[in-house]
Amino acid sequence: MNRIITISREFGSGGRTIGKEVAEKLGIPCYDSDLIHRIAEESGLSEAYIKNTEESYSSGIFASRTYGLTNEDKLWNAECRVILELAEKGPCVIVGRCADYILRDKADLLTVYIHASKEFRAHRIEYVYGENANKSAIQRVEEKDKRRSAYHRFYTDMKWGQAGNYDICLDSEKITIAACVEIIASLY
Amino acid sequence: MNRIITISREFGSGGRTIGKEVAEKLGIPCYDSDLIHRIAEESGLSEAYIKNTEESYSSGIFASRTYGLTNEDKLWNAECRVILELAEKGPCVIVGRCADYILRDKADLLTVYIHASKEFRAHRIEYVYGENANKSAIQRVEEKDKRRSAYHRFYTDMKWGQAGNYDICLDSEKITIAACVEIIASLY
Repeated sequence: MNRIITISREFGSGGRTIGKEVAEKLGIPCYDSDLIHRIAEESGLSEAYIKNTEESYSSGIFASRTYGLTNEDKLWNAECRVILELAEKGPCVIVGRCADYILRDKADLLTVYIHASKEFRAHRIEYVYGENANKSAIQRVEEKDKRRSAYHRFYTDMKWGQAGNYDICLDSEKITIAACVEIIASLY
Repeated sequence: MNRIITISREFGSGGRTIGKEVAEKLGIPCYDSDLIHRIAEESGLSEAYIKNTEESYSSGIFASRTYGLTNEDKLWNAECRVILELAEKGPCVIVGRCADYILRDKADLLTVYIHASKEFRAHRIEYVYGENANKSAIQRVEEKDKRRSAYHRFYTDMKWGQAGNYDICLDSEKITIAACVEIIASLY
């Protein structure tokens, strides 16, 4: 089993940056949720791929929903498949997409959760992603929090942000992003 | 404001051991919840002390309960007072007793939460505290978890074990107690 670091993070907490820097420090690849989503979407476009994925899951956690998969379910299945494939290739860092849940018992995991205060994250997303004319940064943080939490709960049935679900949880504001990187890399 | 490390922990997770070792490493005192409880009980025996404590809290978070304090409330108030006094004396480590909540805005805090799987903790309490003829170790862990969680919720109105409430949360089983000590001391 490959040694894999999974990073779950609140929107704007710097989890993706931390993942990339940890991976760089350790000389292993970092796959973020955008990349996994894109691969899944691209491969998901071929019906054969989705069918294959559906079959491989139909006997598992999604058995009861096999005959009524939504597009979101199909994408989730395709993403699971992508994450399992990436994890089999070698040690890596995976940011987001419930990788901790998908890879439980499938890899030698170090599971990380990064969080910070709403104010810190609002400030940070304006700096990183720019302003949004229609929504305040706090609104964007709150909406994304809600969506991630619901997504996570729906597909994993675990409570988002519960310390017991992770090996280590860090407040990136209090601990600083640089120190988070140091700590995580030192635990690898 | 003194720099203070507070350690909340699940029963049997090794939080107290970690607190003691961190304090030793940093050359500062460690106050555990037993000690705080004892000081509060001893000082609480003098009516003047409790009265004094009640008065100092009556205008604050307990205003609405001033005219109906239970013995548990009185002890909580006395413990708050003890913790505030200890925190004023100098930098230290405080294990348990909701010190993170009591000292918020009153000290320069590093707030830590230590947890581990039930199985690990059950095994550890039998090793540390010995066996109990009437209850299995798992039962003892579950009962204490319930009690701590309810106590914490009642007096702080914060959810026990929610990562967002702490600067750093560590799984002492996965990370190891020695590595927890290293990380916490390095963040001081």
